[in-house]
Amino acid sequence: MADAGDIAQAAKARPHERLAEALAREMDEVNALIAERMASEHAPRIPEVTRHLVEAGGKRLRPLLVLAAARLCGYEGPFHIHLAATVEFIHTATLLHDDVVDESTRRRGRPTANLLWDNKSSVLVGDYLFARAFQLMVQTGSLRVLDILADAAATIAEGEVLQLTAASNLATDESVYLKVIRGKTAALFAAACEVGGVIAGAPAAQVEALRRYGDALGISFQIADDLLDYDGDAGVTGKNVGDDFREGKLTLPLIKAVAKADAEERAFWRRVIEQGRQQEGDLEHALELMHRHGTLAAARADALAWSARAREALTHLPDVPLRHMLGDLAEYVVARIS
Amino acid sequence: MADAGDIAQAAKARPHERLAEALAREMDEVNALIAERMASEHAPRIPEVTRHLVEAGGKRLRPLLVLAAARLCGYEGPFHIHLAATVEFIHTATLLHDDVVDESTRRRGRPTANLLWDNKSSVLVGDYLFARAFQLMVQTGSLRVLDILADAAATIAEGEVLQLTAASNLATDESVYLKVIRGKTAALFAAACEVGGVIAGAPAAQVEALRRYGDALGISFQIADDLLDYDGDAGVTGKNVGDDFREGKLTLPLIKAVAKADAEERAFWRRVIEQGRQQEGDLEHALELMHRHGTLAAARADALAWSARAREALTHLPDVPLRHMLGDLAEYVVARIS
Repeated sequence: MADAGDIAQAAKARPHERLAEALAREMDEVNALIAERMASEHAPRIPEVTRHLVEAGGKRLRPLLVLAAARLCGYEGPFHIHLAATVEFIHTATLLHDDVVDESTRRRGRPTANLLWDNKSSVLVGDYLFARAFQLMVQTGSLRVLDILADAAATIAEGEVLQLTAASNLATDESVYLKVIRGKTAALFAAACEVGGVIAGAPAAQVEALRRYGDALGISFQIADDLLDYDGDAGVTGKNVGDDFREGKLTLPLIKAVAKADAEERAFWRRVIEQGRQQEGDLEHALELMHRHGTLAAARADALAWSARAREALTHLPDVPLRHMLGDLAEYVVARIS
Repeated sequence: MADAGDIAQAAKARPHERLAEALAREMDEVNALIAERMASEHAPRIPEVTRHLVEAGGKRLRPLLVLAAARLCGYEGPFHIHLAATVEFIHTATLLHDDVVDESTRRRGRPTANLLWDNKSSVLVGDYLFARAFQLMVQTGSLRVLDILADAAATIAEGEVLQLTAASNLATDESVYLKVIRGKTAALFAAACEVGGVIAGAPAAQVEALRRYGDALGISFQIADDLLDYDGDAGVTGKNVGDDFREGKLTLPLIKAVAKADAEERAFWRRVIEQGRQQEGDLEHALELMHRHGTLAAARADALAWSARAREALTHLPDVPLRHMLGDLAEYVVARIS
């Protein structure tokens, strides 16, 4: 759906890569610390499993957010490195546990750890990475940082349990959805930005702005991701249209459609989502209902509004190049759906 | 195998119950805090799963150790309550994850959570309890407490992974076994005692003595437990003789027997443990080999030596009634095998 903005878009394409470039020296330190701390003298299974996942890459977005937030507030180090490694460990641990929960078979283009080793290794190595993350943050000596990350860890776990129990449940409303995606994505984005500001000793207003930026960025990112499941180009997104629908997941476009359903439509949603009895043509009918009620457009508008909120939060921060890269990042996460 | 010491034994039977009685008022506070913090406004599945496990009881040994250590060093509160709840949450979280790893079906006389709900709930509710434990310890405001518990969490997870990879591996020696049982039992016992002393502001020598007590108590307890699997009365222990043997677990009596094996005996151990090909009479032959090499008696001597070490550590602590109850506890864990 890209239009006249294409050229401007291309110029600022892939802002996370420009962030990574601007913070390359520090990301090298983060990667070295990650390699050092994922080692286990006694249990070689641990680095095997972790390396499989860590070396597969991913965008390293969460450590980049920590580094950017800290540098933006004038911090010279060294503890932003520890905190960047901390959030990557927490993220990797949640991926290991998610793959057990989702019974996934692919992650970052490779077979998942639970498939290569077993569920046991995924659960226990995830626990080990949580513990290592915890040790890293204690090293910063900041109780406030520990407080923020402990709260984030609780929000993440609570969101995951909520997602599990909300699955296939048509009573799931937008407020539950928001809690689920805060747990899934926004809580760690927000904590990454906030601890960057805290470790830099930034004023309260800046720390709060960083937290709001991370929260809004994460929410915007996740709504866009969920929208692409109904409205994306599989060649670009790497997802098949309708995967969430087939799994009975209640994401925003569907939740909004259920809220506007008449009796006949409700019966349809009950059959395909609650009872999971799907047949040929159901996805097409679901898409037609979403278009009829304008819920894809409404979800898109929500994602854009959260992206705008993320950029607004940045106006409270020092006007340096890193701030503009973070602003571009907030635009980029919704560029895919604009 | 009890003998003339029977009467003295009976008088000090079940010292954990006397500890619980001496600390009853504080344990009430701990239980109230546990109930409060395991609640989740958003995800009712969380208290359902946790209540199932927490209300089944268990001896609450770990929180009692925190309370006893803190009170022994003259602490009046309030943060020993938080730390007692913390260690119980960590313990409950590891039980939830263990049941997924072991594919268990019974725990504390009830069906396990993974059987009643699913593996997903066990993994995610375990993660939630870890996060809640983490929040509770941050509330104490003590970085030293956080440091101790972060290290314990890493030792626990590392020990569990090590146990997984050591299973059915005849190369497992006594030093690996010690690391596994430290992870499984002793690390949290030691941390519970140590943080009790730290929060009380006890002198370094007392804190160190508490740590050594908890470590030795945990090791002694676990060796005794593993010994009972070969030498216990099923009616008393609730375990069937030979469970560990049938699962190919390498516990101390077996490790010692493998170390003394001649070529023919090694072939036997390879078949029944490494290859897991067991037949009628194998358990009896294994027991005969253990008796021949005196490994059951040697493991018993090790458990008693660790129990004595635990009691020796107590001599560095104030001579008050709680100290004697802790001493009785160290005797009690080996009374079953004496």
